[in-house]
Amino acid sequence: MKAVITPGDGSLSIEERPDPAAGEGEVLVAVKAAGLNGADRLQRAGLYPAPPGAPADIPGLELAGEIVELGTGVSDFAVGDRVMAIVAGGGQAERCAVHASHLLRVPDSIGWPEAGGFAETFTTAHDALIGQAGLKKGERLLVNGAAGGVGTAAIQIAKLIGAAPVASVRNEALRARVEALGAEVIAPGDERDSGPFDVVLELVGGPNIETDLASLATGGRVVVIGVGAGAKTELNLLVLMGKRAKLMGSTLRARPVPEKACSAAGVAADLLPALAAGELTVPVEQSFPLAEAEAAYARFEAGSKFGKIVLTI
Amino acid sequence: MKAVITPGDGSLSIEERPDPAAGEGEVLVAVKAAGLNGADRLQRAGLYPAPPGAPADIPGLELAGEIVELGTGVSDFAVGDRVMAIVAGGGQAERCAVHASHLLRVPDSIGWPEAGGFAETFTTAHDALIGQAGLKKGERLLVNGAAGGVGTAAIQIAKLIGAAPVASVRNEALRARVEALGAEVIAPGDERDSGPFDVVLELVGGPNIETDLASLATGGRVVVIGVGAGAKTELNLLVLMGKRAKLMGSTLRARPVPEKACSAAGVAADLLPALAAGELTVPVEQSFPLAEAEAAYARFEAGSKFGKIVLTI
Repeated sequence: MKAVITPGDGSLSIEERPDPAAGEGEVLVAVKAAGLNGADRLQRAGLYPAPPGAPADIPGLELAGEIVELGTGVSDFAVGDRVMAIVAGGGQAERCAVHASHLLRVPDSIGWPEAGGFAETFTTAHDALIGQAGLKKGERLLVNGAAGGVGTAAIQIAKLIGAAPVASVRNEALRARVEALGAEVIAPGDERDSGPFDVVLELVGGPNIETDLASLATGGRVVVIGVGAGAKTELNLLVLMGKRAKLMGSTLRARPVPEKACSAAGVAADLLPALAAGELTVPVEQSFPLAEAEAAYARFEAGSKFGKIVLTI
Repeated sequence: MKAVITPGDGSLSIEERPDPAAGEGEVLVAVKAAGLNGADRLQRAGLYPAPPGAPADIPGLELAGEIVELGTGVSDFAVGDRVMAIVAGGGQAERCAVHASHLLRVPDSIGWPEAGGFAETFTTAHDALIGQAGLKKGERLLVNGAAGGVGTAAIQIAKLIGAAPVASVRNEALRARVEALGAEVIAPGDERDSGPFDVVLELVGGPNIETDLASLATGGRVVVIGVGAGAKTELNLLVLMGKRAKLMGSTLRARPVPEKACSAAGVAADLLPALAAGELTVPVEQSFPLAEAEAAYARFEAGSKFGKIVLTI
């Protein structure tokens, strides 16, 4: 069974579809859990088509499960291994083919819902903070929109490397939980008083950019990976010049296989030991069985959630 | 004698002022030539005040000349040495104090007007392309506004490291001279057809940013160091995200002494051997004696120049 997007109205149905095959260098995974992400919502709305090679109408950018079949040329994994991964689409289904170089091993201490919500958010946050912005020990990080999946991952990664995370959280009811992750929590609009920041991780979008730049330290960087509040922004280049600042954007989905393998290798080296040791947690707000996918998406849309919404299978 | 800005109307006069002293770690230079830069023009208009410690009313961000006095703690240079440097202000004068760590030795083959126009433009272009944007061998560079001092320096630096420079030049009369530096020359507006570019060096400003981003390759970078056409810009963050692009700005002037020393060391290592060997040239459109500073600024303002306007003393 797979979650299937109906073209046109974007509604979801759960349908029987042929299982994918494990191609060369791939494994077939029996999916146990698959997280929801903002990009799934955009794809349902027809705004973010799946890249070539990914299923066009089955959403799902991350999954966790057990390997049930090995394609040719796969030697590092065995049938029965517990794995998690980002995929270019098709994760919200009983079976999904995944390139072996993108697999992360699930630590024994981590349950399926957490594993199903780990890969996309932690890989995205790791790539944005470490790969793109070059966040270093001792630097101050502002996370705008910090209560969601990527935000909670970013706060923990910053703590792990010895940076100081400050979190802007709109929903007061979620602030205590974000604070418990180790962040100093501020209300949106307090960025200027709380700066300067070396890095701003922008998960809200265009309306924040001007304040983000104003709150940067010299040499600071703003990384945009979410634009739910709008993608258009106005800016004053003199501010960018005066601070020697960088404004950058990133997405993972459309990258070629070798680059995704590189991202996975970075996460495996930097984050998996800490996940196994309990130093990183995957907050799951709520999980839903696959048959209730529409309800899961409704919960995702409703916002005011701490961490992930996950489908279990 | 020094060029002195009259507060209020920004007019220039040539006046006798006390010579600066060579402080600890500094040398006093008898200036032989001093280039004009866009920032001098902004400073005269009251838009770009000199940073603390620099003369408030004497323009000039680069100079070349002979050392006439050593401050305490200077051992790498001697009286009589031919040197050039960027300064935070006060370069358009008979005498200027310069921190020894910012000095570059003038190759024997280089005359004073060229030396006086080298430091600011080549250091700015080197810092923007190599330090900020990380331009690499084999990458394609677009220089927007390529006929001026920084633009002609950028084209030559790109060639020197094995990158492929494309130059956008507004003034048709200057295109052949820019082409002779080794760039493929295009007219403004042809960026989209000529891309994709790995790096865009933006010397014109805000109105170009949207096209700059549209013409970038995946992973591309836009470095803004000139905003003569306006500093405000609108942009679509989805373009930045989709291309994993970076928009960055830079200025040299306000940096602390050790960072400027680092920039100078980079230029000395990467560029001075090529300058001495004749692989880099400093195009000087016209030079004027210090007494004719107002005429020099008028020529600078008029635009349509190839390379530098320089004052000689």
